[in-house]
Amino acid sequence: MQHELCERDEKQGVNIITTCADELAKQQRSISVAEFFEKNKHLLGFDSPTRGIITTVKEAVDNSLDACEEAEILPDLYVGIYRQISGAFRIVIEDNGPGIIPEQVPLVFGKLLYGSRFHQIRQSRGQQGIGISAAVLYAQITSGTPTRIISRCGSDTKAYEFLIQIHTETNEPDIQKREEIAWERIHGTRIEMVFSSTLAAKKRLIEYLRYTSIVNPHARITATIDEEELVFDRTSDDPIKSPQSILPHPHGIELGHLKRLVSDAEIPLASFLMTSFSRVGEKAAALICSSAHLSPDVITKNLIMPEITSLLSAMQQTRIQPPLAALCLSPIGEPLIRQGLEKEFSLDYVAARTRPAAVFSGHPFLIEAAIGYGGLLLQEGNARILRFANRVPLLYQQGACAITTTIADINWKSYNISQQGLPLGPLIILVHIASTNVPFTSESKDAIASIPDIEREIRLVLQDLGRDLKQFLSRRDRKKADEARAQAICAVIPEIAMIVAKTIEKPVPDTAPIEGRIMKKLIAKKRTEDGIVTVTIDNYTSRPVDLMAYAFLYGELKEPTIQPTFIQDKNDEMTVVWQIHLPDKASWSVSFRGTHTVTIDLRGIDETKKVVIDCDI
Amino acid sequence: MQHELCERDEKQGVNIITTCADELAKQQRSISVAEFFEKNKHLLGFDSPTRGIITTVKEAVDNSLDACEEAEILPDLYVGIYRQISGAFRIVIEDNGPGIIPEQVPLVFGKLLYGSRFHQIRQSRGQQGIGISAAVLYAQITSGTPTRIISRCGSDTKAYEFLIQIHTETNEPDIQKREEIAWERIHGTRIEMVFSSTLAAKKRLIEYLRYTSIVNPHARITATIDEEELVFDRTSDDPIKSPQSILPHPHGIELGHLKRLVSDAEIPLASFLMTSFSRVGEKAAALICSSAHLSPDVITKNLIMPEITSLLSAMQQTRIQPPLAALCLSPIGEPLIRQGLEKEFSLDYVAARTRPAAVFSGHPFLIEAAIGYGGLLLQEGNARILRFANRVPLLYQQGACAITTTIADINWKSYNISQQGLPLGPLIILVHIASTNVPFTSESKDAIASIPDIEREIRLVLQDLGRDLKQFLSRRDRKKADEARAQAICAVIPEIAMIVAKTIEKPVPDTAPIEGRIMKKLIAKKRTEDGIVTVTIDNYTSRPVDLMAYAFLYGELKEPTIQPTFIQDKNDEMTVVWQIHLPDKASWSVSFRGTHTVTIDLRGIDETKKVVIDCDI
Repeated sequence: MQHELCERDEKQGVNIITTCADELAKQQRSISVAEFFEKNKHLLGFDSPTRGIITTVKEAVDNSLDACEEAEILPDLYVGIYRQISGAFRIVIEDNGPGIIPEQVPLVFGKLLYGSRFHQIRQSRGQQGIGISAAVLYAQITSGTPTRIISRCGSDTKAYEFLIQIHTETNEPDIQKREEIAWERIHGTRIEMVFSSTLAAKKRLIEYLRYTSIVNPHARITATIDEEELVFDRTSDDPIKSPQSILPHPHGIELGHLKRLVSDAEIPLASFLMTSFSRVGEKAAALICSSAHLSPDVITKNLIMPEITSLLSAMQQTRIQPPLAALCLSPIGEPLIRQGLEKEFSLDYVAARTRPAAVFSGHPFLIEAAIGYGGLLLQEGNARILRFANRVPLLYQQGACAITTTIADINWKSYNISQQGLPLGPLIILVHIASTNVPFTSESKDAIASIPDIEREIRLVLQDLGRDLKQFLSRRDRKKADEARAQAICAVIPEIAMIVAKTIEKPVPDTAPIEGRIMKKLIAKKRTEDGIVTVTIDNYTSRPVDLMAYAFLYGELKEPTIQPTFIQDKNDEMTVVWQIHLPDKASWSVSFRGTHTVTIDLRGIDETKKVVIDCDI
Repeated sequence: MQHELCERDEKQGVNIITTCADELAKQQRSISVAEFFEKNKHLLGFDSPTRGIITTVKEAVDNSLDACEEAEILPDLYVGIYRQISGAFRIVIEDNGPGIIPEQVPLVFGKLLYGSRFHQIRQSRGQQGIGISAAVLYAQITSGTPTRIISRCGSDTKAYEFLIQIHTETNEPDIQKREEIAWERIHGTRIEMVFSSTLAAKKRLIEYLRYTSIVNPHARITATIDEEELVFDRTSDDPIKSPQSILPHPHGIELGHLKRLVSDAEIPLASFLMTSFSRVGEKAAALICSSAHLSPDVITKNLIMPEITSLLSAMQQTRIQPPLAALCLSPIGEPLIRQGLEKEFSLDYVAARTRPAAVFSGHPFLIEAAIGYGGLLLQEGNARILRFANRVPLLYQQGACAITTTIADINWKSYNISQQGLPLGPLIILVHIASTNVPFTSESKDAIASIPDIEREIRLVLQDLGRDLKQFLSRRDRKKADEARAQAICAVIPEIAMIVAKTIEKPVPDTAPIEGRIMKKLIAKKRTEDGIVTVTIDNYTSRPVDLMAYAFLYGELKEPTIQPTFIQDKNDEMTVVWQIHLPDKASWSVSFRGTHTVTIDLRGIDETKKVVIDCDI
């Protein structure tokens, strides 16, 4: 192969080629990460001016909530979007978090890939150390203005004001102003930036704030968006306990990482395993060492490459307990998810489920999901999908998300839901992934990458919820079918009665009880004969019923056969109430002296379950 | 607002919070871009070991083809995937490109974000300076081994061998070996790396090589994939002319970039505009200056921020010719696309179209597309979609790609193609985007981001192709419907003839001519009566036809009424041929002495267009 290629090469001008390699070498340059993301800003969620605002608010709110959680503060956030005379927008996000010490402010805001959460193994909203500095970069690209930051860390410290940009060629902060200022807030951070933008996505921004508030019930978010005031108040006064950092799990480590850890440590192998990894105790450490044919006492620094390789495979093959997800993950929880959906969509049905924690490539994660039906949801079209990752709503790239593709891959028809790719109908599907390392498809954190372990968990929880939904739907359908059948029969009963009555020359009988029996309802009838009012209640349902029979009449209640539970007299208008326990198929009756002016009603039971007939009318 | 927040804060422990800000500050760290991509390797297309091989081959082949183009060399590439005893795979990619000078090798392969094409405005496969060094990083993570590189830049230079890894904490190359070696190749580069991987995606890898070869007809690719040998030979001997770099277009520049350019230049504004931007001549420069209310002679370095802002808006509002796409873009071309698809799928129909160049955010781009129908394509299921960007096939994340979503958004039913999201049926849709800056949704370069300007161009070209396809389909359908109708009629004609004959007591007539007339075919009939053979040909088609009537007989041809064009005598078996021009609706006839052993045939016309009837049988 090589020989043949070489012969071909010799036919071509070799001198030209040498020159070319030198020419090409002159063009080689290092690219700063700021330059890279300036050119590829769509990767960070800054595709368009419209989206720029949402991404900025999202990144700032993520940071504020993370910081408040870490400091165990109940978050109070303020989001302001103000239209400027120039047509640009001023974006303000202010929090009551712990603040950022002045030495760190320029790096946190003026340098891409700088942060506190990248190297920790625990659930957090921010992971990358890119988000907010990307917003600073975007502001300087589109409006040419620096970002203003005020931060204060407590009553015994001063507040500082900064004006910051980023040197794109070096990815280093460009501090244009640093000044001690008076600030009435005791601790917290405020950022202000100006964008050339539009508010075309205002609805989506409000949606983002609403869903953020639903899954962060401990947060209070106040917003002014282009003169519209919004408050998303907290529904819980307990700060969320910040998830704790854990050590890497032996099943999730890769060779390169292990090699670094090994060469950094100068301790016996067994201690190294126990102190560097989570869930490795003495027993597991001994097992790993023996299966790797290594002494537990060997000093790690002295291990050579083949030994590290066999150590890795021993670590991966040894049975070790899964990572302590309860420590490092913070699920939203079934009740909260259910409440949020019910409140938002007045659903006919909703069920939520939190799966046990699982692991992908050593990263703990868990899936929570809910399915809601009916209510305010649209009858037509695709099911509505709400996606969340680490308590952050995902707004863009729904089609590219493993959550969506997994939903589309499930056979919804087996749960009596029609489907065309996605399931159809008045359906809402919520999926939340909580993980120490959410695998997004891009830095803009819009969509979950297709990871088989994650997709399996999503599928399992949705199949579980699907089965429950099917039960609900078939109960409802059965009820509907029964009712339709009963109504069809009831519709012809009066006619039959009339014809029969005519034939046998008798008066037309009262068919209401028959209807009640067929319709499985409570039937209350009032009939007045010879100055005596008789009220009869028949329970044709299949259950015992507790209810109240009301009679409204003028004047006095005379000679009732059953004493009422309660009588209210108001300007000669009496309200008489009998509290009744009526077993199924049973009948109850009361008579008293009275006239046609008496009206009756049944209360304390479902409207659809009762028929009240006044035989005197 | 602020005041209210502050009151709340005071209720919480302020001292705790101060400590927390300090605590948080201690965890703040700079993240090297290598660390970032080590943790987020799925962003680079290294989601799984299986995909790792494909991504590596893709990045290396991209680089080789780019380098060969730049040096105007006909590329000869070799791709080798060898299974190792350990279960890992050794990946080898070798090219006959211009080579890389030894000073650059460690940076090109051992540093993420380093390259020659990032800062140039022209179409190239590689853009980011990440791809191949990410493969080096992936090899060292999964197998712990360095990457071996050999490169040589021509006959008057030596070849060098390197062993290279990446220091992830610093993103700097770790050169483990650098040595002059003898190499029989005069110029070129060879890389070898070892992966823990699988070959589960072998089919996709071969597909990638095949499509790469289709859109790079000047390249010869030889491959050994796990003992299978493959050759994708070149079909053209003309090297592709490398697209040239152009200056940024005034409509595509952003404020931040302009600010940098302005402060770097110390020349009069008008000259600055003409030398720093493409398509700006004296007239356009003057227009921009006057509309920005700036003197053409002001020295750019002295411009202050509000002046730069108004300069930018003047640049954007002034009409300027679009960028010279012909220089910097290299489309595949309609004939090549058509040929490639026809060859691959033996299509019944294919049409290709190259759109004129367009611009998004100042970046020139053009869309080429083709639609093919029938052939080897599956009758059922979604249309097959082939996506290309800058002559590179895109293999993953089809659902997330603007090409796919635009296809799904088109109303294919109006082109008589059924549709369920994507169009359905034996359809193939190819789309190629060529641009100086292809906006991918992630660094793995799998999918095109949703950019309205690009989506519009894709829609336009596909609608154009859709209209042509509709014409083809309706012609075909009309033909089909006509034939079905004709066949239905023909099926009953013999029966009718029989009944009529019986009724009027005559022999059953020959109904073939009627059928031929209905079916619009050529009907040849042979009838023998009293030792005379008569051959009659009727042209019932709507066109004149040139054909040959063959008669095969034993012995001599006696007394033909028309002299044949050609006679062949072979062992007493005669082949007699009449060359005939037969106008539509015309009839032709010949008689000669003969017996039942004569057989006839029509040649030189479509099989489906002729019916040959032997009335003697």
